[in-house]
Amino acid sequence: MFIHHVYFWLKNPGSEEDRTKLIDGLKKLSKVNTIKKFYIGAPAATNRGVIERSYSVSWLLFFDDPTAQDSYQTDPIHLNFVEECSALWNKVVVYDSIDV
Amino acid sequence: MFIHHVYFWLKNPGSEEDRTKLIDGLKKLSKVNTIKKFYIGAPAATNRGVIERSYSVSWLLFFDDPTAQDSYQTDPIHLNFVEECSALWNKVVVYDSIDV
Repeated sequence: MFIHHVYFWLKNPGSEEDRTKLIDGLKKLSKVNTIKKFYIGAPAATNRGVIERSYSVSWLLFFDDPTAQDSYQTDPIHLNFVEECSALWNKVVVYDSIDV
Repeated sequence: MFIHHVYFWLKNPGSEEDRTKLIDGLKKLSKVNTIKKFYIGAPAATNRGVIERSYSVSWLLFFDDPTAQDSYQTDPIHLNFVEECSALWNKVVVYDSIDV
């Protein structure tokens, strides 16, 4: 299993409109057919020193293998998402992992 | 759904023994009965500017709700894991999210 977890920091974190635009964009992006499972998230209420909760939106994807994730990166739906939505964020952090 | 994603940085990232100890500890920890699903991961081979791949082990948990996660935090199995394994890492970053 290939786990791709992306955290987005919005340029305007207080803008409900921008947040909705990003979430709508992710819903469209979820149609990429190599995605096995997806979860769109917002920071939980938990708040301890080790918790990073300054991001706006979390995007968690499961792929069968690295090849499926490579294919997602260049899928036209993904390229379209970047074109339509990348102006909304000013920081993205990605953690890719393979189950052991 | 409550998604709890923890990234561990080992004190001795080159030690296969320490990595195995941590992974074995997480396998024991996975027995906490409020955990719905768990994934133990290692950084994938992907390597772009936005990708954080300096961690050693990824620990991804799904809970039904925030209460189930609260209960996990204080479960004796969790407290025992922290006691047995916390000397192995020097940094932990946690991202908690709720699906939107």
